[in-house]
Amino acid sequence: MASSSTAPTPAAAGDVSFDRWLDEQRRRHHYAVRRAPLDALPGWSFSRDTGDLVHSSGRFFSVCGLRVTTDHAAAGQPPRSWTQPVIVQREVGLLGILLKEHRGEVHCLLQAKMEPGNVNGLQLSPTVQATRSNFTGVHRGRPVPYTEYFTGDRRGGRVLADSLQSEQGWWFLHKRNRNVVVMTDEDVPALDGFRWLSLRQIGALLRRDHLVNMDSRTVLSTLPVQVLADGCGLPGSAGQDDALHSFTEVLSVLAEARFGYELTQEPLPLREVLENATSPWRRTRDGIGRPDGRHFTVLGVTVEAEAREVARWSQPLLAPVPGVAGLLVRRVEGVPHVLLRAQVEAGSLNVAEFGPTVQCSTRHLTERGAHRPEFLDTLLAPGAGRVLFDTGQSEEGGRFHHALTRNLIVELDESDTRDLPPDFCWVSVPQAQALLRHGNYLNVQARCLMSALTLATR
Amino acid sequence: MASSSTAPTPAAAGDVSFDRWLDEQRRRHHYAVRRAPLDALPGWSFSRDTGDLVHSSGRFFSVCGLRVTTDHAAAGQPPRSWTQPVIVQREVGLLGILLKEHRGEVHCLLQAKMEPGNVNGLQLSPTVQATRSNFTGVHRGRPVPYTEYFTGDRRGGRVLADSLQSEQGWWFLHKRNRNVVVMTDEDVPALDGFRWLSLRQIGALLRRDHLVNMDSRTVLSTLPVQVLADGCGLPGSAGQDDALHSFTEVLSVLAEARFGYELTQEPLPLREVLENATSPWRRTRDGIGRPDGRHFTVLGVTVEAEAREVARWSQPLLAPVPGVAGLLVRRVEGVPHVLLRAQVEAGSLNVAEFGPTVQCSTRHLTERGAHRPEFLDTLLAPGAGRVLFDTGQSEEGGRFHHALTRNLIVELDESDTRDLPPDFCWVSVPQAQALLRHGNYLNVQARCLMSALTLATR
Repeated sequence: MASSSTAPTPAAAGDVSFDRWLDEQRRRHHYAVRRAPLDALPGWSFSRDTGDLVHSSGRFFSVCGLRVTTDHAAAGQPPRSWTQPVIVQREVGLLGILLKEHRGEVHCLLQAKMEPGNVNGLQLSPTVQATRSNFTGVHRGRPVPYTEYFTGDRRGGRVLADSLQSEQGWWFLHKRNRNVVVMTDEDVPALDGFRWLSLRQIGALLRRDHLVNMDSRTVLSTLPVQVLADGCGLPGSAGQDDALHSFTEVLSVLAEARFGYELTQEPLPLREVLENATSPWRRTRDGIGRPDGRHFTVLGVTVEAEAREVARWSQPLLAPVPGVAGLLVRRVEGVPHVLLRAQVEAGSLNVAEFGPTVQCSTRHLTERGAHRPEFLDTLLAPGAGRVLFDTGQSEEGGRFHHALTRNLIVELDESDTRDLPPDFCWVSVPQAQALLRHGNYLNVQARCLMSALTLATR
Repeated sequence: MASSSTAPTPAAAGDVSFDRWLDEQRRRHHYAVRRAPLDALPGWSFSRDTGDLVHSSGRFFSVCGLRVTTDHAAAGQPPRSWTQPVIVQREVGLLGILLKEHRGEVHCLLQAKMEPGNVNGLQLSPTVQATRSNFTGVHRGRPVPYTEYFTGDRRGGRVLADSLQSEQGWWFLHKRNRNVVVMTDEDVPALDGFRWLSLRQIGALLRRDHLVNMDSRTVLSTLPVQVLADGCGLPGSAGQDDALHSFTEVLSVLAEARFGYELTQEPLPLREVLENATSPWRRTRDGIGRPDGRHFTVLGVTVEAEAREVARWSQPLLAPVPGVAGLLVRRVEGVPHVLLRAQVEAGSLNVAEFGPTVQCSTRHLTERGAHRPEFLDTLLAPGAGRVLFDTGQSEEGGRFHHALTRNLIVELDESDTRDLPPDFCWVSVPQAQALLRHGNYLNVQARCLMSALTLATR
């Protein structure tokens, strides 16, 4: 059985090619994920009181009900109201990446990690990817390696970024993870399954489909400018002052949305969502979903894995329809700007965050009368702009089953000064990086695209 | 009857002395506030379903129940859990101050405004102090003047600060107000009841008890450094880099608290708080409170006023025991630093915010066995440091009845390098000002003390 206590491999990358290492990891990390009915997941049950799907420890996460009322995207109509299942995970998780300079280049310590919802088994996760339960041993599994670099005095490392960031607001209620970057001067051996990779290598790996996992991408988006060395991958990046709008004006676009839009979130027993004649959500033998197949399904899996903290477990996963997340980029007097949109999501902690230019599911777009989000056609049309990035990425495999999002970055011509609908704002790349020092400004889709823009479009 | 449509007084201050103007306002703003039982407030009632105290419009605010579980301040003990009444106000309010340069000095347009909970009738409020209901006319009152400077294109004014900031986390659940500062070049007449005051004048008025209201103080705390002209009132202020800790380290102290402390907030029907044998909260003829008199009472008032949007109304108010909020200040190599404490409050939106060094109620401190908060004795002891500020300030009179807080700022000797307990952090004044550009970093007590420090200790 593979173990994290085997002798460390050399700290510097390059002695074994990355692909051979990854193949080796895949061979050694045997695992099997099998679908299972939600009422046959050991440790999980539907609460008698509420119908919520909960774990017997009372921890990890629950699938609950939520009633949402909002006047966002109602276009002058009265506020819309609906009920839906939602994942509630009160605990704040920790996602940490350890950095070290090797031969003059900043390297990140990443891990080839299996998550049950991954479409392809192993993906590259942060140095530490753990819930507080992992730290306190509720999992009753092996200790999580490298946590000592992210807690207490961090073994003398310097913290370069530390913020609580949101996750998918349509699937989670008020979910946040702590995103931390720590630079060490110590010689830190890469345990089995871990590998030091340079930012240049990671940039190249980001261009491969479903390889760098969502947790890594969001932490990488918070890397400070000085670590990115030449700043943004797009040449011509500049200070915050060389921007179309002042930084306060950018903050003000979001404050206006948080003030101006109504968002009422009423937690409900899941039973009231599933047994309500006016709600399309139903529980079937396959899980929880809708007859029209829209949005997502909640299904169960049983996992057997050798190289995780616990060798065998069962859990629910949320299986969404596929989506697209796209960022339009434009230079303004040479300075790259990204087009962000203040976005209200069902489970937002603070009403609104900046999302990318476009963020939608793609399955129903070709139906008659389907709403096509603003700028979607610009993003997808051949020749509308220069395609800087076009890669399939996965959402977090610990909660989501085969959650595939096409990530697109398209650069428009500098002369493309079309009018913007409300809630959209051109934000310079340095301004977006300044926003990323703080929590709850850029949503997870925008953060993942920012990591691609700054690391993979050089 | 005084009306906001009378001819504007000259825009420049100085033609009538401030005190004569304020006396004149007090004479002209007749009002009467009378106590009334909670079940005799027109428009308000206890919900049959929940026992919550609600308004018939479903808007404004409600008094509800809350169960809180937290391991903060539990000192290694198991998490504490309790229930309490709490004010729920879903709507985000707007607090806006309009700025203009007169004769080379930045002036703020403030209003002498009556609030029913004020200990002394009129206090100086922001240019605009309004809920979204005020904008949309749910109050069915007069339109709120000057709102056009804070919405839409702001009549061409420049926005200098715009963030959603928290209010009292022990009394409100997830309450936020939008704090906005706009600079105009227009000649804006001061309507009756309004007055342009220079930052220097406001600094002097902040040293008078209960004159500059809480809403003004919190907006003033977000004034950008360039408006404060010589930066911090304390000479020797410097850039963010001249600080004991890096800005990321400061952010990290708060991220650590948000990650490390558990805070579970379960909204409850108020009935479950008031009719629970293990809870000390009871409804009596006088209102809602505890036999031991601790924390606060909820009482009712009926108001007759001439110069408010509505001439007569009734509402509940939360009447807290008096408190103290204190900030210790120390120079580090000449740069002033404030001692902030990551603080978990019952109604915090995001687990924790930085509070001042000390924040507590004072009524029960002399009882045997009472817990004396850290640094309270340093703050209050004669000669422990140089007293920079010591003024009685009021919390918001629209929600709180005679809520009086002694605001203290004491400067320690530079050589006072005592060890700090967990959650405390020395933050340079420029760093604190950088935090104040963003929401939910400094709580309302810390923000009010920052406005005193930067404006009233020059």
